[in-house]
Amino acid sequence: MDYKALQKISYGVYAVTTWNQGEATGCIANSAMQITSEPATIAVSINHNNYTHGCIMETKKFALTVLGEDVSPEVIGTLGYQSARDIKKFESLPYELKDCMPVIPEGCAYFTCDVVDTLETNTHTIFLGKVREAGVLSDKNPMTYAYYHQVRKAKSPKNAPTYIPE
Amino acid sequence: MDYKALQKISYGVYAVTTWNQGEATGCIANSAMQITSEPATIAVSINHNNYTHGCIMETKKFALTVLGEDVSPEVIGTLGYQSARDIKKFESLPYELKDCMPVIPEGCAYFTCDVVDTLETNTHTIFLGKVREAGVLSDKNPMTYAYYHQVRKAKSPKNAPTYIPE
Repeated sequence: MDYKALQKISYGVYAVTTWNQGEATGCIANSAMQITSEPATIAVSINHNNYTHGCIMETKKFALTVLGEDVSPEVIGTLGYQSARDIKKFESLPYELKDCMPVIPEGCAYFTCDVVDTLETNTHTIFLGKVREAGVLSDKNPMTYAYYHQVRKAKSPKNAPTYIPE
Repeated sequence: MDYKALQKISYGVYAVTTWNQGEATGCIANSAMQITSEPATIAVSINHNNYTHGCIMETKKFALTVLGEDVSPEVIGTLGYQSARDIKKFESLPYELKDCMPVIPEGCAYFTCDVVDTLETNTHTIFLGKVREAGVLSDKNPMTYAYYHQVRKAKSPKNAPTYIPE
């Protein structure tokens, strides 16, 4: 199997946020896609090891913020490369409430979702979210995962399905 | 709900192919993403109305070809805008066998997959495919859905979750 083939699949870059006992928390994901249009549903895939995974399991709610090409390193660094087991991610990061869910104000668009179904794998859960509210936050270009790697020179964190050990 | 927000989600463009009673068939999809890395699995979402949907249900196998920015209009036109109920799609389109599955030779990369799980919605099935074989076909740029719409001026066919009636 040529693992380089897997790098040809296109993705965006998203903040997946929810509540942890009344405190905002979240992580970065690239695996998100719209599944149905009526009603609008979105599937996101989250690693079992992400603290956010357990919080979504508990609240059955998540918000997805589409991040732009100019997203600040603080958003990616705090949400993507640190764990909510160690820090309170939104103590330093600003968030905005939309439909009573935390979203990233500097994003391109957001969705608030109720989990209506899940599909389990050995390492990840696909959460199927029914979109409750959707809005455009700015007209910035959404960041693709290719842009994130090629232009922003980022590496996949180890919980990402696209992670390749060096 | 602002439906424009849904257009900020990033995708690639793929040919999803399989067998129909010994004949190659397939359709175009944008909703594909890697879910796990070990073993490698890929989720693709297919509309119930696509003829390919029933064929994957029957064979429990599909191949995914990542299409490049320069993909020929014949591939998109035949696989994406016609139905296998009306024509034999691969009578005019060339395909190549990889791991005994039909793939599109002019693509960027391919995966052959066994369906190991599904998640049902009212209009689409998410097929979780365990990758059996993966290969790079060329070093062309994979086409993003944004490129497909903005540069190639394409419209979403009506079975796509991203379809917006005019």
